[in-house]
Amino acid sequence: MASVRIREAEKGDCGHILRLIRELAEYEKLSEQVQISEEALRADGFGGNPFYHCLVAEVLPAPGEPQGPRVVGYGLYYFIYSTWKGRNVYLEDIYVTPECRGQGIGSEIIKKVAQVALDQGCSQFRLAVLDWNQRAMALYKALGAQDLTETEGWHAFRFEGEAMRKLAGK
Amino acid sequence: MASVRIREAEKGDCGHILRLIRELAEYEKLSEQVQISEEALRADGFGGNPFYHCLVAEVLPAPGEPQGPRVVGYGLYYFIYSTWKGRNVYLEDIYVTPECRGQGIGSEIIKKVAQVALDQGCSQFRLAVLDWNQRAMALYKALGAQDLTETEGWHAFRFEGEAMRKLAGK
Repeated sequence: MASVRIREAEKGDCGHILRLIRELAEYEKLSEQVQISEEALRADGFGGNPFYHCLVAEVLPAPGEPQGPRVVGYGLYYFIYSTWKGRNVYLEDIYVTPECRGQGIGSEIIKKVAQVALDQGCSQFRLAVLDWNQRAMALYKALGAQDLTETEGWHAFRFEGEAMRKLAGK
Repeated sequence: MASVRIREAEKGDCGHILRLIRELAEYEKLSEQVQISEEALRADGFGGNPFYHCLVAEVLPAPGEPQGPRVVGYGLYYFIYSTWKGRNVYLEDIYVTPECRGQGIGSEIIKKVAQVALDQGCSQFRLAVLDWNQRAMALYKALGAQDLTETEGWHAFRFEGEAMRKLAGK
């Protein structure tokens, strides 16, 4: 079996990350919502004060194989703030390309995010899952996450576009 | 009727903000979860690279009244990152003390957050609401927000405490 490495993303990975962002949005049946560009990902994640951080999973070539490592998954996160617990981590996206699932790569990404969170003094991290994605829900629960929508009744709301401009009076 | 002003919070407001954070957690029936201190709020929100931003609503004294302005509400937000739309705002908390509700103070706070978001190049902002808080849900919907848990099926998950340490192997 091919060897997989999880590492921090570099600026040069943004093309791969964008490809996987699009794959994830297609999987979520929401691909029409992706408006981000590779240039924006480079500028926003790799400047002096990055808006996000990213881990990538890459399959390493076997000895003698001509091609280089292949990026097959990513976890994109940033720091948020809880008025109960202080600084925390939010895992915005986690994705592993279909042909590489079932090898524990997603779990490895989540573990690394938990390590980063603890190293940075965060006591928790949050993420969101679509309710029809039972495979993901089962994984997160098996890893110890709590479904707050189920247990406490939290609903996610979003203002955007015309509604937001109208709200702001602009 | 007393005059109300919405303004950016200052370091000296942290005692008031903590009082209101506790009131909000009691209202949400989750007050045992508040572990933050006034010192942490000062350090985290008012350093060189703040982890959060905050607006406060204060009732101004009528002419001749001896007491100073009284902080009766707050909206605490930070910048997040959408892999679909780029930089965005998350409104972590919004609260108005019970005796000051029904005057549009909450709506004013939300409007200011929408203005900040647009000024910072964000195309959306997100927040979370408890499903039994029908009053808040109705307000956000009336202001143009979409309930993503209802329409798309998003569930909020959280790792924390022992589960998170175990996950991280620490």
